[in-house]
Amino acid sequence: MEQTRIGLLHPGQMGSAVGRVLAEAGHRVLWASADRSAASRRRAAAAGLEDAGSLEALAAQAEVILSICPPHAASEVAEQVAAVGFAGIYAECNAISPRRTRAVETTIAGAGAGATCVDGGIVGGPPAGGRPAGGPPRTSLYLSGAAAGRVAACFPPEALRAVVLSDRTGAASALKMCYAANTKGTSALLAAILALAEREGVRDALERQWGEGLTRTAHRRAAESALKAWRFEGEMREISATFAESGLPGGFHAAAAEIYERLAPFKDRAEPPDLDEVLGTLPTGPDPATNPSTPAASRPARRCWRARVP
Amino acid sequence: MEQTRIGLLHPGQMGSAVGRVLAEAGHRVLWASADRSAASRRRAAAAGLEDAGSLEALAAQAEVILSICPPHAASEVAEQVAAVGFAGIYAECNAISPRRTRAVETTIAGAGAGATCVDGGIVGGPPAGGRPAGGPPRTSLYLSGAAAGRVAACFPPEALRAVVLSDRTGAASALKMCYAANTKGTSALLAAILALAEREGVRDALERQWGEGLTRTAHRRAAESALKAWRFEGEMREISATFAESGLPGGFHAAAAEIYERLAPFKDRAEPPDLDEVLGTLPTGPDPATNPSTPAASRPARRCWRARVP
Repeated sequence: MEQTRIGLLHPGQMGSAVGRVLAEAGHRVLWASADRSAASRRRAAAAGLEDAGSLEALAAQAEVILSICPPHAASEVAEQVAAVGFAGIYAECNAISPRRTRAVETTIAGAGAGATCVDGGIVGGPPAGGRPAGGPPRTSLYLSGAAAGRVAACFPPEALRAVVLSDRTGAASALKMCYAANTKGTSALLAAILALAEREGVRDALERQWGEGLTRTAHRRAAESALKAWRFEGEMREISATFAESGLPGGFHAAAAEIYERLAPFKDRAEPPDLDEVLGTLPTGPDPATNPSTPAASRPARRCWRARVP
Repeated sequence: MEQTRIGLLHPGQMGSAVGRVLAEAGHRVLWASADRSAASRRRAAAAGLEDAGSLEALAAQAEVILSICPPHAASEVAEQVAAVGFAGIYAECNAISPRRTRAVETTIAGAGAGATCVDGGIVGGPPAGGRPAGGPPRTSLYLSGAAAGRVAACFPPEALRAVVLSDRTGAASALKMCYAANTKGTSALLAAILALAEREGVRDALERQWGEGLTRTAHRRAAESALKAWRFEGEMREISATFAESGLPGGFHAAAAEIYERLAPFKDRAEPPDLDEVLGTLPTGPDPATNPSTPAASRPARRCWRARVP
């Protein structure tokens, strides 16, 4: 494999794991420690990344930059890279909508230094470093855009599955949005249903009707989601925007964003919280079961088909 | 089993199947043909129901009335029964919110003729008539309220599982809302995701990432939902209201209602429609993939936690 100088912005949980895979494959992987936290320094060192010091120094050396950060920070990272005159390939790998990815492309390509944007979307958890444990890799990086193949070629296929979708910016982002729409959207829905059942005093009955398999899945996903909720909220808002931009209802993931927003305070827990604590966090306002006479009017469903019952 | 005179409003697909189970168990099951369709007459005759003619005549003879109709019609049916002076047990078995069920109870009990309301919620498809094919029944009727046991006692357990939850009106409705929130909510979500993937040109890649099992499930649920969508929309709006009344986001099922509203025109198809036709029906507005420069601003996700990337 040809050695490439790769800049990694920034070594969070996912970024450091991807950086480790690239460093172990023989690439020089640079990060920029300026203004980063002590936790980022520890992760970067453990992953075998080389500290370029500043973003300017990183951009001057790197042939490829990977942007891997929470969705809300994606545009800012692109603007910073554009501002320092980067001339290589900028891979926008974050969970953002196709439209926002196209805006990042405009920022990067429009800076005039000769940089090219590649769209990316990561599906699956952080790749395993060290010796991969056999079997197919658990992480896929979808890529699209004219230079997508150049980015894909950096990755050792046994550690991370890099898939070139097309030469169209937006395709990789769309794939990521669709995939997470199901996984994280359904987790939020299940947590909300459990919270509703708990509040209405029918959780035991619901779980008997669901059976052991679905009940265990719902419990596990609600508790695990609570720990990661702080970074899921922004992703859900990106998915909601993606649906709306394609003429589909954005409400599923606007609701999921609300659920994760309410769970965000669980961020610093060392272990998944107790399910009852998670469910108790979700509803706001008075309990309707104990306040059956709350004032809002009982409104029948809208009539959208013939009014006669069959 | 003690013979009971049961009024059934009305013999739609579910109502006629429940009526048949009761008639086969030896009860006298009445319906009222006035103002009903020819299809209702055929279903009532096939189920062995006895035509009382008018609602007045049905209410004068029945000890128990079961209301089984589309959600939007539930309040109107209750008002009609209250108006004719019914004095027995009124089982409100429809997919409506706990709050709307409590409003129905007020209508029924407040009419002053001595009627009692029982809350009900049906989970599963219509029960099988004739000789049940062994195994547990596929239909459950959840019941709550002071007289719930009296209604449950009418049902032969081999054909329909009647479960008394509590003496609290609203519990059975809440259970039904929670159960359908997952099944029908997830079907709508999967259909929307497939439509998004199709529109963004990444459906093949998504389905490869999903694998055969989930892909087949999503296809089947999208196509089957299309046929029933006309009566799912109102139920989704009831679930959305139930979530909101419990302080939980109503957006999941407001979005599901939009999906089913767009699929409602498939109502009169004899067979599940082609998947491509279903997915093509869902998005509204111009295709963003072919109109990448649509005017709405690209808006970054809201910042809800510390702005520094990790």
